[in-house]
Amino acid sequence: MSAVNFDNVTCPQPLRDYPQVVLGHGGGGQLSAELIEHLFVPAFRNPALEALGDAAIVPPPAGRLALTTDAYVVRPLFFPGGSIGELAVNGTVNDLAVSGAEPLYLTASFILEEGFPLADLQQIVERMAAAAVHAGVRIVTGDTKVVERGHGDGCFITTAGVGWVPPGRTLGPEQIRPGDAVLVSGPMGNHGIAILSVREGLEFETVIPSDTAALNGLIAHMLAVCPDIRVMRDPTRGGLAASLNEFARHSGWGIEIHDNRIPVEEPVRAACDLLGLDPLLVANEGKVVAIVPAPAADGLITAMQQHPLGQQAAIIGQVTEQHPKRVVARTPIGGSRIITLPMGEQLPRIC
Amino acid sequence: MSAVNFDNVTCPQPLRDYPQVVLGHGGGGQLSAELIEHLFVPAFRNPALEALGDAAIVPPPAGRLALTTDAYVVRPLFFPGGSIGELAVNGTVNDLAVSGAEPLYLTASFILEEGFPLADLQQIVERMAAAAVHAGVRIVTGDTKVVERGHGDGCFITTAGVGWVPPGRTLGPEQIRPGDAVLVSGPMGNHGIAILSVREGLEFETVIPSDTAALNGLIAHMLAVCPDIRVMRDPTRGGLAASLNEFARHSGWGIEIHDNRIPVEEPVRAACDLLGLDPLLVANEGKVVAIVPAPAADGLITAMQQHPLGQQAAIIGQVTEQHPKRVVARTPIGGSRIITLPMGEQLPRIC
Repeated sequence: MSAVNFDNVTCPQPLRDYPQVVLGHGGGGQLSAELIEHLFVPAFRNPALEALGDAAIVPPPAGRLALTTDAYVVRPLFFPGGSIGELAVNGTVNDLAVSGAEPLYLTASFILEEGFPLADLQQIVERMAAAAVHAGVRIVTGDTKVVERGHGDGCFITTAGVGWVPPGRTLGPEQIRPGDAVLVSGPMGNHGIAILSVREGLEFETVIPSDTAALNGLIAHMLAVCPDIRVMRDPTRGGLAASLNEFARHSGWGIEIHDNRIPVEEPVRAACDLLGLDPLLVANEGKVVAIVPAPAADGLITAMQQHPLGQQAAIIGQVTEQHPKRVVARTPIGGSRIITLPMGEQLPRIC
Repeated sequence: MSAVNFDNVTCPQPLRDYPQVVLGHGGGGQLSAELIEHLFVPAFRNPALEALGDAAIVPPPAGRLALTTDAYVVRPLFFPGGSIGELAVNGTVNDLAVSGAEPLYLTASFILEEGFPLADLQQIVERMAAAAVHAGVRIVTGDTKVVERGHGDGCFITTAGVGWVPPGRTLGPEQIRPGDAVLVSGPMGNHGIAILSVREGLEFETVIPSDTAALNGLIAHMLAVCPDIRVMRDPTRGGLAASLNEFARHSGWGIEIHDNRIPVEEPVRAACDLLGLDPLLVANEGKVVAIVPAPAADGLITAMQQHPLGQQAAIIGQVTEQHPKRVVARTPIGGSRIITLPMGEQLPRIC
């Protein structure tokens, strides 16, 4: 063995020599190991991740499992109030929370474009780590692939989430009954307008920040006050209109909302007016829409308003036997219009 | 309400009018719903998926959870012996299986480029569905985003996997002991050469198909015969060299392998010779490398050879107290060389 050269170091080196992502960062070799050990592990630090196995092994949850996944392709990557990093954590946490689950673990998978600045990746990862701490979840495993310049767009992130659902908790549109109240946790449209304004270089009088936030704390509070919430969604792509249409279609009942009860912040309303957008169709990233038994609605709203993320919670409508499977908005002047599911993407790459 | 136009159909329509992916397919609106209900749900059909919630709710597993994720960016999307669809299922199943987990559920997240043919997406999804059935796992939730033409590369898929680990099963490099045997389930390098040959338009005498396969059946068989397997990996990116270096580095022991015991199919060896590649560095997608107590090795190899995916299983080396943290290959003529972790990507976008 004496002929063997032991000076050949195989331990991961610091990242400093590479200001940008190179294909080798996705190659499963030494550069991949450096990225993992000097960037991802220090940011996401937890025992399951640090084992660096092909899968993370974690304690079992105490009930049924909830699983979710979302790809994040938002452009730009950084915007007022957040970044793709916060979205990738909060969005997946929220999908678990609105399903009645307590979020526990996240996985994180990166598709990076060759040449992407490592400093930007570092910042995104640190924001993910902070968002995970804030939401009380752990990022326990991940993956990185690198595609050639011109075959991606900087940084795409896919997170998957695992949570647990307590025994007896069953949320879903099939629980909806006529007479139920429809409520939202706060003003609509902030995230979409935040993205659009930076992307299109629009200048409004006020900077409109994204509302990105983890909703699991608020939702746990809501379920404690009102255990028989029928169904919840976080109205992201497609906005409130998409969530309400899903409720109507899958429950078979009609939903009636009142335009003048839907909270919309004044700068967001002004921007929507200017751009010809309906705030009901604009994405949110830190709001929940819920359908609850009518007798519980007022108490729930009061409780939500005690929480930082629910201060502007409002009852916006009710479930009706009329116009089954349709969402209808009543206008202040006594008219009505059907709120349809938008055909496609109003604002592409909003999340 | 009589003024309301109820002819406005909001139910998802068939996909036929769109031969290609458009941005709206990722928009969370009607086109997204069409894609889900006419393409993904029919292919992946299962109750948890069909609930179409923001998260899938599934029964809890019987032990500790195993979680994993991988992004798949292979190019080309279709290649001899498989496609990105089989890889996205089998690769994630294998990461769970080599961790000692029984794979249960997958999530699937798609980042599509505007203009991607829907027929190709359909074929990929059907191949994923078939691979999931074959591996005995269920794809219970998913997501689709669409990026503008020129900002992606057709189709990227990220899958996450959930499995369960039976009580008392603890695999990992820290279990490795000097004297342990190192074994592989079959010939090395087929996947990487399969991809490279189609991508570079190389013509060999024989078409070399990818070895993509779900290993959970073979691995369950191995664990039944030899419950005290120390550690396993599926040697994908970075090949056998990367897996063995990980074992050596994280266990603190040395690993010695014998070049002439490593199974490599003749066409693969010829292609590697031609291209100047070391088969130990070339990716596999249906092979397992395991470290096991020496007394169990022969019996385990015999058992593996009974399984369709282990017919060419072989003992290729042993763990040693010499050259700690290093992998050394003995050559047939009595020499030796250090097998280092490759720096980066030998063959980018292999999976």
